[in-house]
Amino acid sequence: MANNNETVYVIGHKSPDTDSICSAIAYARFLNELGENAIAARSGEINPETEFVLNKFNIQVPELLTDASGKRLVLVDHNEPAQGPDNIDKAEILEVIDHHKIAFKYSEPIYFHTEPVGCTATIIAWEYVKYDIEIATEIAGIMLSAILSDTVVFKSPTTTEDDVETAEMLAEIAEIEDIEAFGIEVKKAKSSLKGMTPEAIIYSDFKDFEFSGKKVGIGQIEVVDMTEVAGRKTELINKLKEITKNKSYILTVLIATDIMNEGSDVIASGETGYIEKAFNKAFKDNSVYLEGVMSRKKDVVPPLEKAFKP
Amino acid sequence: MANNNETVYVIGHKSPDTDSICSAIAYARFLNELGENAIAARSGEINPETEFVLNKFNIQVPELLTDASGKRLVLVDHNEPAQGPDNIDKAEILEVIDHHKIAFKYSEPIYFHTEPVGCTATIIAWEYVKYDIEIATEIAGIMLSAILSDTVVFKSPTTTEDDVETAEMLAEIAEIEDIEAFGIEVKKAKSSLKGMTPEAIIYSDFKDFEFSGKKVGIGQIEVVDMTEVAGRKTELINKLKEITKNKSYILTVLIATDIMNEGSDVIASGETGYIEKAFNKAFKDNSVYLEGVMSRKKDVVPPLEKAFKP
Repeated sequence: MANNNETVYVIGHKSPDTDSICSAIAYARFLNELGENAIAARSGEINPETEFVLNKFNIQVPELLTDASGKRLVLVDHNEPAQGPDNIDKAEILEVIDHHKIAFKYSEPIYFHTEPVGCTATIIAWEYVKYDIEIATEIAGIMLSAILSDTVVFKSPTTTEDDVETAEMLAEIAEIEDIEAFGIEVKKAKSSLKGMTPEAIIYSDFKDFEFSGKKVGIGQIEVVDMTEVAGRKTELINKLKEITKNKSYILTVLIATDIMNEGSDVIASGETGYIEKAFNKAFKDNSVYLEGVMSRKKDVVPPLEKAFKP
Repeated sequence: MANNNETVYVIGHKSPDTDSICSAIAYARFLNELGENAIAARSGEINPETEFVLNKFNIQVPELLTDASGKRLVLVDHNEPAQGPDNIDKAEILEVIDHHKIAFKYSEPIYFHTEPVGCTATIIAWEYVKYDIEIATEIAGIMLSAILSDTVVFKSPTTTEDDVETAEMLAEIAEIEDIEAFGIEVKKAKSSLKGMTPEAIIYSDFKDFEFSGKKVGIGQIEVVDMTEVAGRKTELINKLKEITKNKSYILTVLIATDIMNEGSDVIASGETGYIEKAFNKAFKDNSVYLEGVMSRKKDVVPPLEKAFKP
């Protein structure tokens, strides 16, 4: 990255999850160590899980940046323009660090680094190691939290050996003795739906996709107690219907993932036939339970994208 | 990369240059060290410069692979599908290591690593260092050659500090004492047009681009003695005209770069008005001399792409 004094915003995706926030903070700090004037930013409100993590390690919430026009950006945890801050096409992109599939085009060669691992923070932790930069206790703590969050305490099929090894290395620095117990503590902070509006639930981790030119929105929540989801289902379906209609989605989905039993209740509105086609299972009352489905990225997006192909 | 026994082909772009061939060999060797069944491949005939380099370090020419259907690939030195082997859309892409701008889409997360440096081999050399794998003398030699070739012995504006430092590190391993003298020796191997047909000259390092949906072909040669180009100009223009017409290009360009004086004679056929617009200089006899222009990627493609924008 060309060293100059203009601020560089390190930013994750819209409806930020713990990885998007913690990776932005950890990578901004890494760039600071390399002499860059980088600050962490966010593309939306943080969720209760992230709030728990930042409080625990005594770290400030990053600055809100919703309009990227004219800004210099480093993207973490996303690379599809639709998932970034508004007017990202009017921003200068300096670097990308991500673990998602690539749908990116840019007019200049840049530093772009994706790996098929469970969490962006896993890649960032190794950047510290490669450059021989010491990882501060609180930065190790938030990167560990991001890994535990994104891999659903190593239960998600996106989990790789790299994620587990990196989490172990970070836990030692952050002085966390029981990694799994800490992971469940992190996940529990987000798992309660109490006091959340249907809109807040759906948008807590929501991403836009384009499948064969059609706009699809997919949110995901992870819950410890699935009876909470069952009790709110009618409200959630009504809100999904409203979003589908008002925001011109072909299909709007909420994946309610049962962390304890490793499966997901998939609730949707719009052309749900694509989901039935993707998983070869019939919808009932606007939802379907899918055994073993844990990851939006690995278990849901690839078959759904395929189902949209003509 | 998932370890299994199926062959992985490490391959560079069509009309391969020294970086595309040497990076494929060096990265295949690196993957072998990691336990992968990888072999180097090529998307076309090697040029005299690459032949000189492989002979010097006693390394075999990689296997020719023109149809990628059903193959498992690692792409080096390119990421745009149009520049890779035929049927690349029917191949499985495992990794990408490149230094060009990104125009890539893939349905799965993969290891994708680009950096804005002068040569792919610079990135690959650091992969060896990061993984603490010893670089063999002959592999250091061909990576050094690739850097000297792509950066035009450090004269190209694409050259970064990283390229220079990496070349110095590799020269020590390859026991090359005078880097610049060796660089000129490498470049000279390709710089003579003697015995080459106009077609062979134009296609020696030729790439397809799409600018605002229009098909543009840009070849580049690097020469020590520009009078050789002047003497062949009529033949070259006639061949460019033929290619433009027969292969439905909007514009076909040959950049004849004068290594010694750091400038380029740009010869073209088709809608040359785009070049005049890009460089604000008039064409005369189907060509224009551009002072300081050395790099297709950095000096020619960005202004030309801009000139095509409505």
